[in-house]
Amino acid sequence: MIKDKEKLPSELRMDLVSNDWVVIATNRARRPETFAEQERIKDSIAPDKCFFCQPKILEKSVDQVNDQDGSWFVVSYPNDYPAFAPGEDLNKREQGPYQIMDGIGHHEVIITADHEKQMALFTVSEIKMVIDLYQKRYLELMKKEFIKYISIFHNHGQEAGASISHPHSQLLAIPVIDPDLRASIDGAENFYKKQGKCVYCTMIDWELKNKKRIIYENDQFLVVSPFASQVSFETRVYPKIHQSNFERMTEPEKELFADAMKVALNKIYKGLKDPAYNFYFHTAPCDGGDYDHYHWHLNILPKTNVWAGFELGAGIEINTIEPEKAAEFLKGTN
Amino acid sequence: MIKDKEKLPSELRMDLVSNDWVVIATNRARRPETFAEQERIKDSIAPDKCFFCQPKILEKSVDQVNDQDGSWFVVSYPNDYPAFAPGEDLNKREQGPYQIMDGIGHHEVIITADHEKQMALFTVSEIKMVIDLYQKRYLELMKKEFIKYISIFHNHGQEAGASISHPHSQLLAIPVIDPDLRASIDGAENFYKKQGKCVYCTMIDWELKNKKRIIYENDQFLVVSPFASQVSFETRVYPKIHQSNFERMTEPEKELFADAMKVALNKIYKGLKDPAYNFYFHTAPCDGGDYDHYHWHLNILPKTNVWAGFELGAGIEINTIEPEKAAEFLKGTN
Repeated sequence: MIKDKEKLPSELRMDLVSNDWVVIATNRARRPETFAEQERIKDSIAPDKCFFCQPKILEKSVDQVNDQDGSWFVVSYPNDYPAFAPGEDLNKREQGPYQIMDGIGHHEVIITADHEKQMALFTVSEIKMVIDLYQKRYLELMKKEFIKYISIFHNHGQEAGASISHPHSQLLAIPVIDPDLRASIDGAENFYKKQGKCVYCTMIDWELKNKKRIIYENDQFLVVSPFASQVSFETRVYPKIHQSNFERMTEPEKELFADAMKVALNKIYKGLKDPAYNFYFHTAPCDGGDYDHYHWHLNILPKTNVWAGFELGAGIEINTIEPEKAAEFLKGTN
Repeated sequence: MIKDKEKLPSELRMDLVSNDWVVIATNRARRPETFAEQERIKDSIAPDKCFFCQPKILEKSVDQVNDQDGSWFVVSYPNDYPAFAPGEDLNKREQGPYQIMDGIGHHEVIITADHEKQMALFTVSEIKMVIDLYQKRYLELMKKEFIKYISIFHNHGQEAGASISHPHSQLLAIPVIDPDLRASIDGAENFYKKQGKCVYCTMIDWELKNKKRIIYENDQFLVVSPFASQVSFETRVYPKIHQSNFERMTEPEKELFADAMKVALNKIYKGLKDPAYNFYFHTAPCDGGDYDHYHWHLNILPKTNVWAGFELGAGIEINTIEPEKAAEFLKGTN
């Protein structure tokens, strides 16, 4: 029986959006430096064998953004093995008590020209070109029939599910709202009904005042370790002013967002020694609904090595570093 | 533009409990045999170096079940590095808009004596002894202060998070309800309010009539591939008759449950060539609430190799085998 509160192994923190409790290891938490000890698996396909370095990519691209010299910097290429593909009809049907529909949609791969250089090492203006293409594709695909939600995400490193090492993001335009986003939207709506304000604005206001979890900020964007981080070194980029739709960012906003995103990715790259990671956007769906209470953001999830003996099943995940320590560590990484 | 419906890459199936849509790859789905092609990483700690083979385990065990010869078969051992530990007070507190409480609870490791032999190779009566200990520990710990939910789960293989190869399960008794279970309970309650019946009973009735996803059944238990399986070869064991609480199983019920569980684990072992997997129970919480509409079950999630190029981020997972084909394959595996 442990009696000394100081020796308790963990604390539970409620996520203000989902109301789920997250376990944060405290007593046996790891020092930030130890997360970088295990180098990640690096794959090494030469450019001449790389699928994304073939001329075909540019020939079949649906859109692109060029750099100042006029050479292409980033293209969007329809995935050859799409998870969703265009079609005429959702073909909704029932099977006993169940419902089925066809996987109608669009699946694009957003590829930067350089075979090696990863986003964490991009300049702000290079990141801005990627954001520009994300936005262009978003604005184009949101007009297509059946599309209710567009997910833009990026997997870096094999452990994060990147099967091709050449840096690329993916865009999925789909006829349903993804479950994670649905839960966030519902949580934000419930908070708004009870408190009369945006749950994300509430958190942002507190974080700006409290300062303990801020990694970086500029005039319009805040980079933080979330209070109820589900994974070690989880990092969010929020617009400071309430804004529901990623795709409505203006040019000056995109500049500042690219700055914040660059700093976030670069600090994770340096501090955690080039870990694998995933990032994705959570933004209001494009299904015509009213999502004024939603607040878009970017979520970055590094894949650090697991806490030995502590990988838990059954939906209970344990974050082995306190978010305040993660923020302090990343803030100090330059 | 793909016009032929037959060539669409996927279909979306709504999970009747969560109402989330699950993506099932259809056109490019893999043949069941190909899932077993990649052998899993095997670790190889000798028994003399194995932590769970030390005399200490038996000395510190809190409960055990012996076999017919009177020698111990399975023990429950308080985890030396618990995620939750006993304490006097939850110490609930606020921090700005956020809530925190201490990680009060119990974390036990349920260890079978044999260093090598995994549950998939146990006899029915051996599995029954493990179930007996799960139930004994559940009944004991549910009486403890602060405990609202008890999670029992088992990780087999490194890829499934088992850091020690000696077969063992874990039991977590915690002061909150885990988010996955909370979502299932809410879904079951919403279905009950709308339809006036249990969502799980509704599915079980359909599966028994439809027969396409049945892997095995006995008088009281049904082993199925869920209609909206989230991972390839996901397998559930349901009591056929409505029952909310795992821990209320009678002796004859436990016998039949052990039979169904043995068949399920053994078919996965043989058909997928000893894959890593996780299993966990979903059962009504022990927080004094009314969960009569809930229907307990066992969920088995094999970790098969991923579909190359298809690992998606952002909460969108793709199941690369149709549940009907998975069921047919496992049903035919003996």
